[in-house]
Amino acid sequence: MTTPRRTSRDIRSESRLDVLHAVLVAGETTRNEVTRVTGLSPSTVATVVGELITEGIVAETKRTAGRVGRPTATLTMNAARGRVVGIDVAETYVRAVLFDAALHQVASVEEPRDEHVLDPGTVLDGIAGALDHVLEQGGVTRDDVLGVGISLPGLVRGTSGTSVVVPHWTWHRVELERLRERVGLPLIVDNPLKVMATAELWLGRGRYCSSMVTINLGTGVGAGIVLEGRILRGATNSAGEWGHSLLVLDGRECRCGRHGCVEAYVGAPGIQQTLREIQPAHPLADLAMQRDVIEAMAEAAARPGADPAVERTIERTAYYLGSALADLVAVINPEVVTLTGWTTWALGEHLLPATRARLVDQAPGRSADDVRLEVSTVRGNMVATGVAAIALERFLTDVGLLTTRIPITL
Amino acid sequence: MTTPRRTSRDIRSESRLDVLHAVLVAGETTRNEVTRVTGLSPSTVATVVGELITEGIVAETKRTAGRVGRPTATLTMNAARGRVVGIDVAETYVRAVLFDAALHQVASVEEPRDEHVLDPGTVLDGIAGALDHVLEQGGVTRDDVLGVGISLPGLVRGTSGTSVVVPHWTWHRVELERLRERVGLPLIVDNPLKVMATAELWLGRGRYCSSMVTINLGTGVGAGIVLEGRILRGATNSAGEWGHSLLVLDGRECRCGRHGCVEAYVGAPGIQQTLREIQPAHPLADLAMQRDVIEAMAEAAARPGADPAVERTIERTAYYLGSALADLVAVINPEVVTLTGWTTWALGEHLLPATRARLVDQAPGRSADDVRLEVSTVRGNMVATGVAAIALERFLTDVGLLTTRIPITL
Ligand SMILES: [Zn+2]
Ligand SMILES: [Zn+2]
Repeated sequence: MTTPRRTSRDIRSESRLDVLHAVLVAGETTRNEVTRVTGLSPSTVATVVGELITEGIVAETKRTAGRVGRPTATLTMNAARGRVVGIDVAETYVRAVLFDAALHQVASVEEPRDEHVLDPGTVLDGIAGALDHVLEQGGVTRDDVLGVGISLPGLVRGTSGTSVVVPHWTWHRVELERLRERVGLPLIVDNPLKVMATAELWLGRGRYCSSMVTINLGTGVGAGIVLEGRILRGATNSAGEWGHSLLVLDGRECRCGRHGCVEAYVGAPGIQQTLREIQPAHPLADLAMQRDVIEAMAEAAARPGADPAVERTIERTAYYLGSALADLVAVINPEVVTLTGWTTWALGEHLLPATRARLVDQAPGRSADDVRLEVSTVRGNMVATGVAAIALERFLTDVGLLTTRIPITL
Repeated sequence: MTTPRRTSRDIRSESRLDVLHAVLVAGETTRNEVTRVTGLSPSTVATVVGELITEGIVAETKRTAGRVGRPTATLTMNAARGRVVGIDVAETYVRAVLFDAALHQVASVEEPRDEHVLDPGTVLDGIAGALDHVLEQGGVTRDDVLGVGISLPGLVRGTSGTSVVVPHWTWHRVELERLRERVGLPLIVDNPLKVMATAELWLGRGRYCSSMVTINLGTGVGAGIVLEGRILRGATNSAGEWGHSLLVLDGRECRCGRHGCVEAYVGAPGIQQTLREIQPAHPLADLAMQRDVIEAMAEAAARPGADPAVERTIERTAYYLGSALADLVAVINPEVVTLTGWTTWALGEHLLPATRARLVDQAPGRSADDVRLEVSTVRGNMVATGVAAIALERFLTDVGLLTTRIPITL
């Protein structure tokens, strides 16, 4: 009954993470600049930078700027400290990306997966194979790897790693233990929404605000919520399932079984459904591949007047999306909302103006007047990058620099 | 652009608040018990208790338990430290409650307000009058008052106190400055949702969990969100406006101007509207006073079979409420959800079973399986108590014991 609400959060750990983000993002920086960007005191920055240099995470180069003047110490991430792997397990592919310790991409492999074959053995084979191949491609041995992060398309439950609930497969301790054995390296498992928000937090808009929501728009839809520089995980690590909150009570059936979820309207199949409602005989209405539909819509939208049904679909989608975002702003009241995911890369710029107008109109009081709604600036393999960042965080926890709450570490 | 996300949160401040809550709630306790309840180390508890005793916030009594054994030091709040006033400004009344420093009620006055007279002067007169009367009734001079908290039915914007946005009135610096002058005592202003969540956090279920949502069901509807022992305020202090998130896109018109808000279905007028839809000629369908409608429904529900239309209305309301709560659980994923407010006191027990069933059914994955949905155990003047607790928190901040983010302190 009495659960003390102490957390493992501590100020020193947070300062280290802030300094690390500052160095990582700047590429090359100085103690003064880190002090300015983080808002920490110069002495804290000096202490933390010293600790990060001692652990070989940050590297220092002394050099003299110009012809006169004192030498300046330049700080960079120590890319040579080791390698980190981020693995994005999706319905239809497994992608493994090898990064150096500065989170620069070194190598990448993508292997197709049969989305109907979901037994743990096959999924494990896919993961282990992709890992082997990317290490081989990068010319790296297992000894060089500081950690591996795996993003699985589902809910990761339990801070100590009890299970992974993916729509069609439920993994318990047994499967996770097998995963650990197959990988044979320090491992974390997390959910794509948390992973994408982590990428945004480390490398995108999250660095400049105290609260942020990152919206993923793809086949599925969801939100990663960042409050005061931390991912909101919730009691069972399922916070951010905004895609399965209601837009229309008793509305369209969602693949989660609920009716009227946000995802059923702004997920890629939902957008296609809207097009189908607007013009049942439209050539894109029954196209099987979602990505083809969304990309064809983006092409049509780039030529105003060319396809009124597509334009009306985008308008309607912005109406749905803005309404649903207003709910998030009502409840969370973040400073910034970023959009990401492959639907965003294709349609984001077409959706943005009307979505923003609807959001401002619908959010309670004037709470959306100041909210910044933007397309994320983090590109590339966002899921792999985010989960690699968490793996790096786990490594820093292991060496005693951070205290964090990472859901499943193996 | 670069806003460092440092917060004023600090561990020492949090430990003090935890110890304070533990003593406040226990009434009478010991250092050992505080250690057990808070999860803090014995040495931290010893230090913090010492600080609270030095400031006269906590009092210590030494006594010997039984005939043998060492004397035990008993800790209580030092009720005599001073008085705190909580003022609940509602549409139709102003209630002022005088508390001692242990948050026990000492005196209370309630004065009617004309809900159509909203000019700042009249509202200020009402507040100042209620304050004078409650001090008089309590036989207390202004010198005894540590602080005054005022709950205003709207959004309090800006951490440094820029404005109060109530549906029909917007107060800016000028009005707040006049309020400060009239009250002439250390003052904080907050929103009822934050205030009720604070009461739940200090005196109710919030003590036993790390994340909680407190739902207010009355004329209006809203949520107070507590994460890791702190109220979620959001970027502009408007987090928790779940009452104006969507249940039905383009549904019933809400008094906020939006269509389909949760409040339009589970606020008291929304419940009456549901009854009207189920049985237009029902005797309660056109009753003017909301509280009379809700209380008559509670009476009817207590006699099963007596009024099928009321029973169907309650069933339908539970369906709406459970669906809308599932959205909150999807996004926030709290451990506990408590229901409060006058609709809850009347109908809560009738609504609870079906609401819980719908919530568990609708929340994503199995995220609601473990959530505890309960009627709040905090009764009495919850708004006045909560806002008095914030005023006490402000006093503790002023004496240097806490670092908190209270939105408007005057
Ligand atoms: Zn769904
Ligand atoms: Zn509304």
